[in-house]
Amino acid sequence: MPPPRILIIGGGFGGLHAARALRRSKAEITLLDRENHHLFQPLLYQVATAALSPGNIATPLRTVFERQKNCSVFLADVEHIDLERKRVTTRSGTHYDYDYLVIAAGVRTAYFHHDEWAARAPGLKTIDDAVAIRRRYLLAFEQAEMETDPDARKRALTFAIVGAGPTGVEMAGAMAELARQTMRKSFRRLDTREARVILIDGLDRVLSTFPAELAEHAARDLQQLGVELRLDERVVEVAEGALTLESGTTGQRSTIETTNIIWAAGVEGCPLARSLGTELDHLGRVRVEPDLSIPGHPEAFVVGDLSSLTDPASGQPVPGVAQAAMQGGRHAGRIIARQLAGTPAPRPPFRYRNKGELATIGRARAVANLGKLRMTGYPAWVLWATVHIAYLIGFRSKFLTLLEWAWLYFFYDRGVRLITGRDRPPNP
Amino acid sequence: MPPPRILIIGGGFGGLHAARALRRSKAEITLLDRENHHLFQPLLYQVATAALSPGNIATPLRTVFERQKNCSVFLADVEHIDLERKRVTTRSGTHYDYDYLVIAAGVRTAYFHHDEWAARAPGLKTIDDAVAIRRRYLLAFEQAEMETDPDARKRALTFAIVGAGPTGVEMAGAMAELARQTMRKSFRRLDTREARVILIDGLDRVLSTFPAELAEHAARDLQQLGVELRLDERVVEVAEGALTLESGTTGQRSTIETTNIIWAAGVEGCPLARSLGTELDHLGRVRVEPDLSIPGHPEAFVVGDLSSLTDPASGQPVPGVAQAAMQGGRHAGRIIARQLAGTPAPRPPFRYRNKGELATIGRARAVANLGKLRMTGYPAWVLWATVHIAYLIGFRSKFLTLLEWAWLYFFYDRGVRLITGRDRPPNP
Repeated sequence: MPPPRILIIGGGFGGLHAARALRRSKAEITLLDRENHHLFQPLLYQVATAALSPGNIATPLRTVFERQKNCSVFLADVEHIDLERKRVTTRSGTHYDYDYLVIAAGVRTAYFHHDEWAARAPGLKTIDDAVAIRRRYLLAFEQAEMETDPDARKRALTFAIVGAGPTGVEMAGAMAELARQTMRKSFRRLDTREARVILIDGLDRVLSTFPAELAEHAARDLQQLGVELRLDERVVEVAEGALTLESGTTGQRSTIETTNIIWAAGVEGCPLARSLGTELDHLGRVRVEPDLSIPGHPEAFVVGDLSSLTDPASGQPVPGVAQAAMQGGRHAGRIIARQLAGTPAPRPPFRYRNKGELATIGRARAVANLGKLRMTGYPAWVLWATVHIAYLIGFRSKFLTLLEWAWLYFFYDRGVRLITGRDRPPNP
Repeated sequence: MPPPRILIIGGGFGGLHAARALRRSKAEITLLDRENHHLFQPLLYQVATAALSPGNIATPLRTVFERQKNCSVFLADVEHIDLERKRVTTRSGTHYDYDYLVIAAGVRTAYFHHDEWAARAPGLKTIDDAVAIRRRYLLAFEQAEMETDPDARKRALTFAIVGAGPTGVEMAGAMAELARQTMRKSFRRLDTREARVILIDGLDRVLSTFPAELAEHAARDLQQLGVELRLDERVVEVAEGALTLESGTTGQRSTIETTNIIWAAGVEGCPLARSLGTELDHLGRVRVEPDLSIPGHPEAFVVGDLSSLTDPASGQPVPGVAQAAMQGGRHAGRIIARQLAGTPAPRPPFRYRNKGELATIGRARAVANLGKLRMTGYPAWVLWATVHIAYLIGFRSKFLTLLEWAWLYFFYDRGVRLITGRDRPPNP
């Protein structure tokens, strides 16, 4: 009898941990991903802000699974899932049949039904996104250095970040620090402290998932770094060179003139989810059973950001964070492993264990919420760094990232200030 | 009296060393470059073959000149040079007037009057080029792993490198090594040793500038790594998916079916040289006086790859190599510094001092020609590594590059096997 076929879609945290949980199973695991690498998303903003190289936080999936002989990796963009026929089809027309399926395809940046904003306000999901944001950010200073018109210079040096969740907060802090400290001595004419970094959110606070006291601490840290907070303000228009906000209290509108807008405001389930034909939530994520399987399909699971589930224990929705994806992937992987081993005990429901929340605001500034224990400042920052190094995949990434951080800490120098890619002056 | 204005076009080896030679001069130095970074070209093929990250060999020009207060850096693409009016115009229309000019704008890939080949056979001049070659190379293996048709798989796994100078030789060696050693255990179906790396040159030997004995040693090293040599064969056609060669001896034509062609066969002066209105050589490089100045314009110099000069001492043309660019930049810088200091002694002619030639073929294999001393194998490889680390700009680049090499040496692992950029399956 041929070994059962397990298909995993997505090599992020969810897919990776599902595959690893199956490492001892007699099965033929196939992992499909659009990219050839696992990406450590929580540090992607550091590529966008020139602190890390892409190679520091991305590991080839083939390297990750080199020793797990029951797992094959293919570069493929899945287009359609047929749950009835147990068959997955890729964009290039290849079929994969499965006995068990784990969908860990994640989410993409969402623009509140304004997809036309995407080109003017890029999100941060892939390495290419991060390199593009880095390019735009660094180019803005190059343009400002040459610009003689003060208004145009002001516009070039205004950076608007929409969304004050962890990604927005961390990016705003890093961008302000880069402008005010790292790059200051590099320019002859320009005072880089002229740069304005504006962090915008429709809610009236930053880091809405954190306890209020930590969120306030983070807000003060951001303001000390020079970040302007525009809270309780909703984006109503993203035009070429300008952003229009509407106050949640007064309904008054205001405009920020800027050519640099970054979108960290929301996500939605990837389009693949629609091909399932099962119930999706308002963000296009797949509603799953308590064990993370798809209703009516005990052989198919959705884990990570793409799954939509209310934790029965807490009554809260399971958040779309790395921890939940790792735990969910492991949960689905273990259920399959147990089925394969022929011990089909009743399936346990998924229980999300929140180990804590962390956000860093800049050099030696962070907030940490570990339930009863709450930390700020230097200790929180050290904890933040330690946890991220610990979860990075592979010794190589851990070591190189730690090295880059030490370099940044001791020399105040972000070493990866490279403008690469398409936006440059055209070649002759 | 305002300080004299010195304009340097290009932040490669020539421009960098010209600016540094002027560091103590009372002058206003302006350095213009299309990129925001100095690129260590001799190691660019290592980015293309996943051994190094772009950030390892590129240093922001602003960082390089942070402490040299008399030098300002601007990101600008120079379009026209008016030697009579002493004025330079950029593509965006900005003017720069100068009292002294150093042109170090380099060369670009040349296709023997077949510019239409450029898209099918990319050259290697910028970081974007290197990342694109890396992407195509790695994608080829991903495609081959999924391909069921043996002919299509063979085509995907055939890599043709045109030009057996140092760049072609080093790239061929690295690509063969990557396929046969590093990636072997990463694939489940594919035997990566099926990959063919073919190195092509119109001359009947590799490394034509090296002594014959060393070139033969390098050729043997390449063959041991599995590289196929097609020497004395001229490229007559680059079609979609195929390369046609013509034998220099028999005139017979043959075709190599491949979708991966890399061009390392020749260069020509950048188009900017034509705007000077002075005499160019057959490769479009500027013919200069023995002191590297432009005939009739003692205030304007051309240094590095873009200058065309016969060394009066040896009767040989000064080669387009990093050493010559560094020495030329320093020479021009010193002449200007002396003029500024008010000691206009007779200008010395430029004398190129060849310190030796090096090429590495793969792990612990290299050839070194130091005049009387000739080395091969492990000692040459250690020398090669030492020299390249020594010339890398900045402690950061030296340290990180050394670290990557140590990693590669001890773990046989190229850590930067990332497919990034545009060729991927499109996003949904």
